[in-house]
Amino acid sequence: MKGIIDIEAMDVGYDIPARPGMAEAEIQTPALVLDLDALERNIKKMGDYAVAHGMRHRVHGKMHKSVDIAKLQVELGGACGVCCQKVSEAEVFARGGIKDVLVSNQVRDPAKIDRLARMPRLGARTICCVDDPANVVDLSKAAARHGTEIECLVEIDCGAGRCGVTTTPEVVKIAKAIVVAPRLKFAGIQAYQGAMQHIDDYNDRKAKIDIAVAMVKDAVDTLKDEGLDCDIVGGGGTGSYYFESTSGVYNELQCGSYAFMDADYGRILDKDGNRIDQGEWENALFLLASVMSHAKADKAIVDAGLKAQSVDSGLPVIYGRTDVEYVKCSDEHGVVSDPNGVLHVNDKLRLVPGHCDPTCNVHDWYVGVRNGVVETVWPVSARGKAY
Amino acid sequence: MKGIIDIEAMDVGYDIPARPGMAEAEIQTPALVLDLDALERNIKKMGDYAVAHGMRHRVHGKMHKSVDIAKLQVELGGACGVCCQKVSEAEVFARGGIKDVLVSNQVRDPAKIDRLARMPRLGARTICCVDDPANVVDLSKAAARHGTEIECLVEIDCGAGRCGVTTTPEVVKIAKAIVVAPRLKFAGIQAYQGAMQHIDDYNDRKAKIDIAVAMVKDAVDTLKDEGLDCDIVGGGGTGSYYFESTSGVYNELQCGSYAFMDADYGRILDKDGNRIDQGEWENALFLLASVMSHAKADKAIVDAGLKAQSVDSGLPVIYGRTDVEYVKCSDEHGVVSDPNGVLHVNDKLRLVPGHCDPTCNVHDWYVGVRNGVVETVWPVSARGKAY
Repeated sequence: MKGIIDIEAMDVGYDIPARPGMAEAEIQTPALVLDLDALERNIKKMGDYAVAHGMRHRVHGKMHKSVDIAKLQVELGGACGVCCQKVSEAEVFARGGIKDVLVSNQVRDPAKIDRLARMPRLGARTICCVDDPANVVDLSKAAARHGTEIECLVEIDCGAGRCGVTTTPEVVKIAKAIVVAPRLKFAGIQAYQGAMQHIDDYNDRKAKIDIAVAMVKDAVDTLKDEGLDCDIVGGGGTGSYYFESTSGVYNELQCGSYAFMDADYGRILDKDGNRIDQGEWENALFLLASVMSHAKADKAIVDAGLKAQSVDSGLPVIYGRTDVEYVKCSDEHGVVSDPNGVLHVNDKLRLVPGHCDPTCNVHDWYVGVRNGVVETVWPVSARGKAY
Repeated sequence: MKGIIDIEAMDVGYDIPARPGMAEAEIQTPALVLDLDALERNIKKMGDYAVAHGMRHRVHGKMHKSVDIAKLQVELGGACGVCCQKVSEAEVFARGGIKDVLVSNQVRDPAKIDRLARMPRLGARTICCVDDPANVVDLSKAAARHGTEIECLVEIDCGAGRCGVTTTPEVVKIAKAIVVAPRLKFAGIQAYQGAMQHIDDYNDRKAKIDIAVAMVKDAVDTLKDEGLDCDIVGGGGTGSYYFESTSGVYNELQCGSYAFMDADYGRILDKDGNRIDQGEWENALFLLASVMSHAKADKAIVDAGLKAQSVDSGLPVIYGRTDVEYVKCSDEHGVVSDPNGVLHVNDKLRLVPGHCDPTCNVHDWYVGVRNGVVETVWPVSARGKAY
């Protein structure tokens, strides 16, 4: 030990799981790994689809919480901007240079409303949702206080069962309140059917979206009759975007998971009955895990448990392997069934997380890999920004 | 806007959910709130129990991941040090001033072993677990490289079904390998029965621990016959510590959740058939959430979803309320059944998380509250340190 501070002991660089140039096998696990080729293909494909169908694509930043990936979606995928779910997230995207940011959610707390009203001064078009006329006054006052403009969408609950109003008269009432409120601008409709995205069967999903489209069409037509045009009619996710984009009613998609895929989304079926992770989208996100114990012959213990992923939508799947299976998840460990004893300590496995959004939210970094080599390390810029 | 950088727009202080002196109602949600009185009583109670039973208490830092709380457990609860599950966590505790740190887990990756071997130079006694003779050589070489000493416990799998060996001959073989390895010190046995902690019935839990104690006693006695004394025989959790501490075999407890409690632990029963959150331990940890939409008369939508908690062990429970119930959790929202419409927008609810450990791991801050006023804000120092 030299001197008062042991520099060598401190200098472990432990806050970054990898550095550019490393082999994938050297990445410190558990870590989120992105297959950059697959990611870029997914982003390009959805961007091309949106253009071909005359839709804007406002990518859902709440899935990845990454400024770097949002910028890739703008540059490579032609995205018009991002949506996200919390003001704290929106601030991160605005500060990071995204110029058009929708908080696709309600903002009700006075401190959050105040922060939202400052956001245009960070250089971003600022949009939020409203489902209560009482909110309009608060948003208007805050925008006036900061000399800014907030654009507002009326949120329709078209089946998700969370925020949003459920009748056209309510939509019209709120829209009119927005129109007359100083410093607010009525911008259209938010109508995301979140509850149907994970229904396996294509036609079952279509039936749910048909109901949503009918609700939204009635609202949009009625608003038009009242002289109110919708600049934005937004919605659509990875399990439904083909319905909204051919509805003749929606004009903005809000897809998120298509870029990464996950095990739960991967199981849903396209119109031909094929899993959407077998052709439509590629797995680009992996949770890299290492075997850390094999004291029992028939099971390997890996280092990725509940602190490295969310299992709300099921356990992770081991990518490209049928001989071993992730069968149990506890705080710090995963139990991998290895009946033939093919795994060894320090072997690495690519896990496809059950649910990408809350899994990404526990990590600080994405490690971008191409051809087995680390190319970049991106921060999960808005990690933990849940408020 | 003044100048190139709009200072006022930037200065939102959004990275801290509260400041000392604030009322609880002003805390930005979702946020982890600690009832400091309850926390201190829990810590003192377990500390007193350990002293009364002649046990050391090595508190489990993986639960809270907080240097501040670990120090409180040392000062107020007489803890001898901490255990935690990952090298990256251990570094945080060692740098934070904890002088005795056990990684109660296997360390196998070469880079992690190297970091572990540097830890004594941060001023901490450094202990880890071993369940494979092959690991002993690697640990020894790393300690020699850094001129340090690593103490090693042999891990017995006494029912958790994860890491650890299952027979006394294996224990003895590894212990002997440690004894002869340069720069390593054989320190005893790690035997935590993690799988039984959440079994509701007291006698069912006891039956599982009886098996564990018999395994550990056999190993300790056999090691003694071989001339090897165990400085540490460690294990025991919030659902079992009374068994290990009266076993005559264990000498260190490793409790974690007792300090915070959670909904899943709270449901288990003590020897008199009472829930352990109704007398034995107090709920000290809450996930504070706000109502952000009440567009439907019979349900309130709160701002704490999967990004603010882990639901692996069930949904959160609304503390002290029977009139409203948290019934559904999605990425950003919780649906609260409110059949009588008693809740209003911006009302705050104290949720008791289903599972404290992975819930704490998604947050950056603990807000410490006493008598309704924020007294302190502590970082979740080792948040995300899963590697």
